[in-house]
Parts: sequence; structure tokens; C-alpha cells
Amino acid sequence: MKCRKCGSKASVNMRQHKLALCKDHYLEWIPEQTERFIKKYEMFTHNDKILVAVSGGKDSLALWDILARLGYQADGLYIGLGIDGGFGYSSESHRLAQKFAYERNLKLHIVDVEEQYGQPIPVLADLTHRGVGRPCSVCGLTKRHVMNRIARDLGYAVLATGHNLDDEAAVLFGNTLNWLGDYLLRQSPVLPESPGLARKVKPLCRFYEREMTAYALLRGIDYIYEECPYAVGSKTTYYKELLNQLETERPGAKLTFYLKFLEARQQGLFAEQARAQATLKPCPNCGQPTSAPGLCSFCRLMERAALTITDTAE
Amino acid sequence: MKCRKCGSKASVNMRQHKLALCKDHYLEWIPEQTERFIKKYEMFTHNDKILVAVSGGKDSLALWDILARLGYQADGLYIGLGIDGGFGYSSESHRLAQKFAYERNLKLHIVDVEEQYGQPIPVLADLTHRGVGRPCSVCGLTKRHVMNRIARDLGYAVLATGHNLDDEAAVLFGNTLNWLGDYLLRQSPVLPESPGLARKVKPLCRFYEREMTAYALLRGIDYIYEECPYAVGSKTTYYKELLNQLETERPGAKLTFYLKFLEARQQGLFAEQARAQATLKPCPNCGQPTSAPGLCSFCRLMERAALTITDTAE
Repeated sequence: MKCRKCGSKASVNMRQHKLALCKDHYLEWIPEQTERFIKKYEMFTHNDKILVAVSGGKDSLALWDILARLGYQADGLYIGLGIDGGFGYSSESHRLAQKFAYERNLKLHIVDVEEQYGQPIPVLADLTHRGVGRPCSVCGLTKRHVMNRIARDLGYAVLATGHNLDDEAAVLFGNTLNWLGDYLLRQSPVLPESPGLARKVKPLCRFYEREMTAYALLRGIDYIYEECPYAVGSKTTYYKELLNQLETERPGAKLTFYLKFLEARQQGLFAEQARAQATLKPCPNCGQPTSAPGLCSFCRLMERAALTITDTAE
Repeated sequence: MKCRKCGSKASVNMRQHKLALCKDHYLEWIPEQTERFIKKYEMFTHNDKILVAVSGGKDSLALWDILARLGYQADGLYIGLGIDGGFGYSSESHRLAQKFAYERNLKLHIVDVEEQYGQPIPVLADLTHRGVGRPCSVCGLTKRHVMNRIARDLGYAVLATGHNLDDEAAVLFGNTLNWLGDYLLRQSPVLPESPGLARKVKPLCRFYEREMTAYALLRGIDYIYEECPYAVGSKTTYYKELLNQLETERPGAKLTFYLKFLEARQQGLFAEQARAQATLKPCPNCGQPTSAPGLCSFCRLMERAALTITDTAE
């Protein structure tokens, strides 16, 4: 297999695009494509201050690397979740995120959940009914809260996450299997800013996971190979496996599924009325928008954590 | 496992419904449920004359059996497709459909495609570009034409087909993977009558394929076990396998996928505008509605067949 651009030995073959490239041309192609997606979906410009949510994994570090290479003003935010999983998941990902920033002279903000909110994610999750043993929803809630707070407090207009096509297709697949209209209407490469919330963008949403792995490896990015220990056996992981089967059978099926969805929605497949969102108001405690009558979900979680800790202390 | 109704040994266990039943109660339960679906989706009443499309397979014979047991005016229509597949697929299914009707004293109309239109399905299919080697689309076109013609000529208000949940879920899955809006808007347990077209109904659309197999076996219905030889390796068969995997992992997933879709659509998930259909007009040759400017697709196929036969004869 030869590189389409220079004819030398190809390093990456993308069946879904009928495209093979050598290392050098692949490392050029990925940022070019990313730039194309950023413009196509009107994600941000060179004037915007961007906060990249960095987990220490390949996608978010690759995203940060690409945005820096493209000359965007992109700083990082690492959130310490306090997850161990028997192999120091959080401490290792923290180390790798810091190393990445240090070596490239990039600015990395760090928020440690336990330091700031009293407990690590697994303990916070155990305080809720649905969180026991599977803290993913509490973790998501906490990360969203922290990202929005830092973006607001430090004046970032845009929050960028490293979700790749496999992530997006798996979420879409789950929402479609259950025909969750609200979620189908909301899933997008760009969520526009709203009062109290920064714009959210996913510049890697059209790259296959293996394309990002190849980029991180060929760029020599040192990232954490392990998934979060709580992701093992999750629904999303299961949907990814099913979609991979489909992809093996028909290269491009995953990309078609995602792109045709975006296209059909843009062409008006879904009813506008369903877009009517619940009225949001600022949480009286943290000020972030919420549809709840009183405190937002995150502040209610914090209240429960404080009560529990008081109970324990008594 | 015991029958929930009488406590005797269960013959069928339906994990997706958390319901086990003995043979007698199962053979009661299926028609009861069918009656419930017929009423829920307002398919037809005891005053309607119904034409059941009978292939000789388990689903269509079971449907005819159930409708007869429920006291509906249901006659059968068998369409001889002229497909052999090395095991006499069409001749065997013809024999079984006739045997079924004869033993129960039911009226069966028979249309043989080769006799009426000059060529069997595989030959007709080879006359078209997309039909070569895979005659499914030409077969579907022909069956729809014949069913509509017989229903109109003999005064049947309703056309009933034996599509089960596995069929419907697989079609929905295919349409969703490609976000085919027009098809998503149209797929339904009931397609209302329109000028020149009988109402189309699928009374078994909420039964799992294995529920229909169990019904046919326990009722002692003699049906053709083999699938149509052209179905092997088809997209639909592949989607069925994927959905079966999902179902094994999460019993009920297939039913949820289909029912939540119907529910979401009824609650207005999709935009009305997209429902705007192409204007239909009667085909100048056969009188069936078509969106084509001249002859309908079926009559164009027949024209091509006639030309080809003339060519060959010259």
C-alpha cells in the first residue's frame, strides 16, 4: 500500500475513505481535516479563547496538539476525578496531561474534585441512587459543572472536547434504539452558547477512533492507554462493539450513520416543536443554568455530600 | 418453568414479556394479542373483506389461521414467483399454501407470475440493472402490483401481510442507519387506503419471529421451513442477526426499538412537512397509482420484458 500523496510506503490505510497515507502526510492530513470541520460547523475562529477538556487519553491530547499546531488559542483543563481502578487511572492520566503541557509550553488548568468538593467521584456517586457501582452519570454531571465554571470564571468562549466518531455514533445509536427525541435533537458537533454556558464543540467528531489512535502514536504523544475502569461493560462500550461489527462488514457505515443523521436533521426531518426546551434559570447557589425549580443537580449532589459527611462525623 | 395461567408445564417462555405459557394458553394468547393489535391500530373490523398475502411460510399461514379463528372474512392470495433455489422453493410453498386452504375450507386465490406475465421472477429481475443476481426489488415490485390488482378487482378493502417484529425492526434498523426520512415516515402497522390502493395492515408486527414459529409449530401448521433462497446474505438478514445479538444481551430491545419509534413518531418527533408525498396519478396502462410521469415501474418492467422476448425471437 502506497501513500496517495507521495507514493512512499503508507503508514495508515483508511478503508472508509479509500485513502492510504505515509506518516508525514497523515500527520498533515489530520489537522487539515480538523480545520475543515471547524470551519464547516462554525465552531470557533482564531479570535476565540478555547478551553480543551483534557483527560490524558489519546483523543483529548491529540485535539489539544492539533489546535495548537493550527495556531488556535487553546488552553487545557484537567479534572482530577480520584478514580484508581487498581492501576492509578486518575494519577497516571494527571501525570501525562501535565507532561504534555509542560513539554509543549501550553497552559493547563487543574481542578481536583476531591480537593474542591470534599470527595472523589466514586464516593460522590455512592451517595446517589443511580450512581452506586457505576459513577458515570455523576462523573458526567461533575465534569460538565466544572468545565462550565472554569470557562465562565476564566473567560473562555468555547469548550472543546475530544469526542471522536466512535463516541458520537455510539451515543446516537443508543438514543436511536430508544428513540429519545430530546437527545436526538440536541446531539451536535456544536452546541451554541447560552446564558451562563460556553459554546461546546467537538472538532474530532468525524474521525474514527482508530484514526485518532494512529495520530497520537505517529505524533509520539504519550497518553494513557487504559480506558476509565468504569467504562468497561458500559452500554456505550457495547454499542461501540456492535457498530464496529457493522463497520467491518461495510466500511464507512459508522460515518454514514452519523453524517446522514446530521444531514437529515438539518434538512428538517425532525419537528421544530420538539426542540422547545424547558425554561432554564440560574441555580441560586452556583449560577449555572438549570431546569430544576431550586438548586441545580450538581449543587443538590454537593448538599447531599455535605449532609452525609456531617452525619458520619456526628 | 410453569404456565402463568394454569400452573402446568410451560411450552413457551417469552423473556421479553416475562411470560411463560403452556401450549393451550399460548394458542389462546396469540389470537388475543393479535385482536388487541388489530383494534389498537384500527386495522379492520368484522365487516371488512380481507385479503391475506400467503407465501407458504409460517408467518403468513399463522396470520391467516389467526384471522380465521377470530372470525374475520379473510381469503388468501398466493403468488407463484417461479423461484426454485435447488429445492423447489415456489412449488413447495404453493403446495403448502393450497394444502392449508383445502384442509380448512378457506378460499385461496392463486396468481402465477410466469403464466400471467410471461416470465418467472428471476428472469424478470435479470432484465433490470439492479435486479441481476438479486431479484428482491423486482420481486417486491411485482408482488405489490399483483396484490393491489387482485384486491381492487375482487373488492377487498384490506391487504394483510404476515410481517413480524423481526421483519419490521430490521427494516427500521436499515432505514435508521441511513436516516432515510421518507421511509421512516411511512413505516407503519397500517398504511391507509388511497385512491386505487387497498389499506395495508401488518397484524403480527409486534410478535417476535420465534413467537410465530412457536405458534405455527404448536398449531400443527405445515409450512415451508426454508427461507427464499435469495434472502440468504441479504441486508435485512444481516440486520436481523445484529438485532438478535442486541436482543440476547437485553431481552426486549427489539420490541422497544420498534414501539418507541412508533410512539415517538405519533408524538410528533418528525416534521409534518417531510410527509408531503409526491403527487400520485393513475398509470395509463394498469390504473394503479404511480409518481412516474408515464407508465408505472411495473408496467415499464413488463414493457422491457416484452421487448426482450421479441428481440430474442427475432
